[in-house]
Formats: sequence, structure tokens, C-alpha cells
Amino acid sequence: MMNPISRVAKSLVLLFMFFTLHATAQKITPYLQTTSQVLELPSRVLNETRTIYIHYPKADSTNPNKTYPVLYLMDGESHFEMLSQYTDYLSRWDVNVIPQMIIVGIVNTKRTRDLTPTESIINYFGQPDTSRVSWMKPSGGNERFLQFIREELKPYVDSHYKTQPYNILAGHSFGGLASVYCLLTHPEMFQAYIAVSPSFWWDREYILKLADQKLKKGGSLNKTLFFSDASEGVSDSSTFHTNLLKFDAMLKAKTVIGLRFEYNYYPKETHMTEPMPAFYDALRFIYKAPYK
Amino acid sequence: MMNPISRVAKSLVLLFMFFTLHATAQKITPYLQTTSQVLELPSRVLNETRTIYIHYPKADSTNPNKTYPVLYLMDGESHFEMLSQYTDYLSRWDVNVIPQMIIVGIVNTKRTRDLTPTESIINYFGQPDTSRVSWMKPSGGNERFLQFIREELKPYVDSHYKTQPYNILAGHSFGGLASVYCLLTHPEMFQAYIAVSPSFWWDREYILKLADQKLKKGGSLNKTLFFSDASEGVSDSSTFHTNLLKFDAMLKAKTVIGLRFEYNYYPKETHMTEPMPAFYDALRFIYKAPYK
Repeated sequence: MMNPISRVAKSLVLLFMFFTLHATAQKITPYLQTTSQVLELPSRVLNETRTIYIHYPKADSTNPNKTYPVLYLMDGESHFEMLSQYTDYLSRWDVNVIPQMIIVGIVNTKRTRDLTPTESIINYFGQPDTSRVSWMKPSGGNERFLQFIREELKPYVDSHYKTQPYNILAGHSFGGLASVYCLLTHPEMFQAYIAVSPSFWWDREYILKLADQKLKKGGSLNKTLFFSDASEGVSDSSTFHTNLLKFDAMLKAKTVIGLRFEYNYYPKETHMTEPMPAFYDALRFIYKAPYK
Repeated sequence: MMNPISRVAKSLVLLFMFFTLHATAQKITPYLQTTSQVLELPSRVLNETRTIYIHYPKADSTNPNKTYPVLYLMDGESHFEMLSQYTDYLSRWDVNVIPQMIIVGIVNTKRTRDLTPTESIINYFGQPDTSRVSWMKPSGGNERFLQFIREELKPYVDSHYKTQPYNILAGHSFGGLASVYCLLTHPEMFQAYIAVSPSFWWDREYILKLADQKLKKGGSLNKTLFFSDASEGVSDSSTFHTNLLKFDAMLKAKTVIGLRFEYNYYPKETHMTEPMPAFYDALRFIYKAPYK
């Protein structure tokens, strides 16, 4: 018969062995999520080096020469992971409602400068902001920013990746404003445009006036456009929501041939939660069944 | 005060850095998306080693001792990146509608064995599948799988990560079935349960009978439950959708005290696209404002 001390000792040894065996057995390694890269691209147009996030779909072993549409995303640092995950999931073999896609996220340097169409000091509530150090300075550089995309970024992407001639421009807030500005002034640059809560309030609704001028009634524009807004303008009594309604009404009245558009209103979402359902709905709208 | 030599040296270093940065034109580096890890965890309960994906929130420098709720996700290989991205985005400082969260994705070995509550050969349309090599074999191991979570996985996670005593169990399809089974049989294990398109058809609606038995009318169960379905049962004339309606009606009739539940129906989504809006809505429902 075992004495009590050796019984305790034996139990301790067994316990020690148990934990040792199990401790060595667990193994931790990093999880490699995607094939995304960070590109530092020097720009002569903007006279600065721009950081670009590029997400590339997992290789299709049955089709090594496969090409992909490209989604150019403004505010890359904000929504790049979201768009990468959305397009990866929705293009998976067992989901398969959109094609695999390359996501190009453009990280901001001077956001207001790059994403606004005019130089303006008129604030969100339509009042001039005369402070010398206003956050709105500098502004009005969207034309030059689109030139950077057209002449430097897109050629880089097209020469380094297997791209299809189907390009989408996507943005939120100022990025949404820039997306609509691009559709109106350079419609040849992209096939589809996404504008999640575009800041139509900029410069006393400059973009609504421009849209009225550029979109000819009964004219032709073979493009796809998704736009949306959330609780802004109801929660803060600004013109945010009425601007979106005006734009939607204008598009309906113009009956532009070939322009497929959808307007979604998310009253339960805020300006910052809305991108989650809106980018999802935008992708589903652009690739409304069947996409192939 | 700096001596002249060190001043010259400093200038040279700065100059060198300047030219180095500008000389390297385009630069590509990998994009490090998250702090996710892959754990290989030997299980005595299941007599096999299980692969677990663990996503940990970005550190909060203002609060190094911060603790996090944990979401345990079945079918880890299918929806781990989705849940990681959703919780990262929704808990970001400028979005901030849910807390930062740890995601624990359990990768399948024998999915049907682990996620079904009974041994059964009754198929999706209520007919017996008598083939010797039916995909439904083996089945009925959910009890043991929950034991693995309770006795091995959860203790591991709680001892290696800064966890809060708030745990969520989330699953889709068979994973949704397992989530509801756990709520009915081991409600103490989790505070909240997500069941996206649970396979209530399993074993001629076994789970509906179990729910009727376990949930006492006017009883008390201080839990949160989100469940949903999509176009299944309408597109394929199975009992899928009517089963969900029955469950919802049963919960309403039982008036269980403390049981917060929401049922969402997504007729435009398929069984495989539904997880995208449903997991989003589930997280928003669990942390309905204000969450703190």
C-alpha cells in the first residue's frame, strides 16, 4: 500500500506530466489573412508619395490567366479591410454572387484638398468659416486627385495586376462627393460609381447644380451608380437628407438612357455605421444577378 | 549644446534618409491586417487536435488592462474573417457601437458529427437516407462538442487572453442549430446566442420539440438570442422557413422572462449570402444602444 506522501507525490508528477504534455502540444502561428500589399507610389501630379493598399484575390488554380475588375476606394485607411472582406466572401465558390475583385485603397494625405471639387469656406450648415486655420483649408483639389488616379495610379495597377476593363470608384462622405463629381466630369474613367452619404452640402450644394448642368434630359450615360445616406440631416437638421432626395428626384426626372442607379436610405444607421450595409448593398446592386 | 561635428553628422544622416526615401521609387510591402493567430489545441474530450482561429483586438494604449467579451464562432473557416472585420470596424473609436471583442473561430473536422444534437438519417426533406455512406454519418455529437468548448477551449482562452465574463456563441446552418441547442441545454455557457438560418429540419424538427419542452411558459432565462433565415424553404419548398416562424411564435407565446430575442427574415438573401447582413444585425441587436 502506498503511503500518503508518495500518493501526493505521484499525483503531482502525473499532474505535472499532464500539463507539460499539453503545454508543448498547443501551437500558435500567425493567421495569414489575405494577399494584401502596401504600395508607396511617388506621384508627380500631386508632388508627394502616396500610400496605396492593394488587395488581390486568392489565385484561381483552374484559371491562372483570370482577370479581375478593380474597385478604387477613397479613404483607403477607413474601409479597405471591409471591402476586401466583402468581395472575398461574396465571390467565394459557394457564395458566388459577384466576381473576384482587386481592391485599391488610396490612403489620405490631405483629405479635404483631394476629395472636394471647389475651393470653399462654407461649412456644413451653409455658413462661412472665416477662421485662418479652418479644417476646410486647403480644398478644391479633386480634379488634380482624379488626374493622379487616371495618369499614375490606374496605369500602375493595370501594368502590375491582371485587370479587366471594368473599374469601380467607391467613396464615403467626401469620398462619395468625389465619386459623383467624377461621374459628372470624367464618366469615361469608371464603369460604376458608389457614393455612400456623399457630402452634397459642400460649397452650398455645388454638386447638385453641376449635376443639373451636366446630365442632359433624355441624354445617354451608360454607367451604374449607387448612392445612399443615413440619419444625417434628420438627427442634425442640416440639408444632408433633403440633398440626397433632390439628387434622386433629379436623376429620375432626367431619364438618362443607360444610367442604372439605386438610392438607399438607412435611417437607423449613423454616418459611420452606414458604410457596412451600404457597401454591401452597392456591390449586390452593381452585380445584380446574373453577373456573368 | 550640440558640438559642430555632431551637428554635421546629424545633417548628413537626415540628408541620407531624405535621399534614400526619395530614391526608392515604388515600394511594396505586405499589408499586416490583424493580430489573428492559429492555435492547434489537442482535445482529450474529442480525441483529436482542433484548429482554432483567434482574433484579438488592437491594443488600447490608454487602457492596457482592458478586457474583452469573446465571440465563439462555429464553422470558423467560413466566417472568421467576416466577424473579425465586423467587430473591428463597429468598435473603432469613430464608430463605437459595440465593444472591442475577441473572436474564436472553431475550424471543422467532422462538421455533421459536432454540430447536430441527435444521431439521425432523416434528410432535409424529411426522408430517411439509408445509404451506407450518407453525408449525415456520423451525427449527434453536439453534446460532446459543447463539452470540448466548456472544459478545454474556454479555459484555454480565458487563461491566455484578457477576457470579460461575457461570451457569445454564433453559428450558421448546422452551427445555428448547435447555438440554439446550447441555449436550451446549457444556457449557463453563454450570455448571447446567434443562430443564422439554423437547420431546424434536423431529425424531423427535433429542436422545436426540445424547445417546447425546455422553455417553460412564464419561466425565466436571462439571455439574448438572435435568429434569422433567408430564401430557404420558399425557393425549395422545404419546411425551412415555416420552422423558423414556428420557433418565433413559440418564443412569443412562452413569454420567458429575461429572454431578449429578435427574429430577422431576409427573403432576398440566399442561405450563403445571408450571413453578411445577419451577423451584422445580430451584433447590433446584442449591443443595442447604449452598450456601456
